[in-house]
Amino acid sequence: MDKHLQEAIREAQKGLEEGGIPIGSVLVHKGSIIGRGHNRRIQKGSTILHGEMDALENAGRLSAKVYQESTLYTTLSPCPMCTGAILLYGIPQVVIGENLTFQGEEDLLASRGVKIIVKNDQTCIDLMKKFIHDHPDLWNEDIGK
Amino acid sequence: MDKHLQEAIREAQKGLEEGGIPIGSVLVHKGSIIGRGHNRRIQKGSTILHGEMDALENAGRLSAKVYQESTLYTTLSPCPMCTGAILLYGIPQVVIGENLTFQGEEDLLASRGVKIIVKNDQTCIDLMKKFIHDHPDLWNEDIGK
Repeated sequence: MDKHLQEAIREAQKGLEEGGIPIGSVLVHKGSIIGRGHNRRIQKGSTILHGEMDALENAGRLSAKVYQESTLYTTLSPCPMCTGAILLYGIPQVVIGENLTFQGEEDLLASRGVKIIVKNDQTCIDLMKKFIHDHPDLWNEDIGK
Repeated sequence: MDKHLQEAIREAQKGLEEGGIPIGSVLVHKGSIIGRGHNRRIQKGSTILHGEMDALENAGRLSAKVYQESTLYTTLSPCPMCTGAILLYGIPQVVIGENLTFQGEEDLLASRGVKIIVKNDQTCIDLMKKFIHDHPDLWNEDIGK
């Protein structure tokens, strides 16, 4: 198991324990985690704190160079908003826990030269499958459906 | 002058008065402003609170239907992140104060069927021109350069 993906999963599990949507993310620069977060729609009533956005926010203000040397790990294929944030900051590589329960904007990322690695990790899949089954309304809200 | 664009400009000016980057936004549903905000990079050390994101966050959790009936006003052409948020929530129309100092992802928005109206309002242009001239470092940071 990829140790950074494992940390993203820990974030997703933390979110679930808080009663939230179980999606987590970490931003990794030269082997070190410099930002971590999880979806906070329920916890904070937030419409913009998806897991990836929370990790980017918690990383704080960084120089363009740091983003351009970083990898974003996320337990779930990134939605259009998180994809846009990746493109804004020029993050060159994204490791995706799974894209079976939700397919985000991977084609757009690839078309802009972002390297994508999809793990289809069973823990990530199980977390989302159960959440979507138990709370379809909350999940649909999170993806604007 | 479009009264809703005027409110987005008020938000941009509020941001400037706070020492921030002068970009403002309002979300309008059936003629009423339901969310308003401005860039808070400097004020909150935030990497995700662009003007549009702040307006969406301040609008709070909404049903998909409300977004799909709304128009987002922004004083500046939307960056990739804000573009992604517009696409995530299916906002069908965006009114842009100006796109001369910065050209965002208007082509992507248009390719997904979002209607774009560009005003090239002189107040919006002047706000950004002066800010970019006075603080090129902060501006570049805000757009990941």
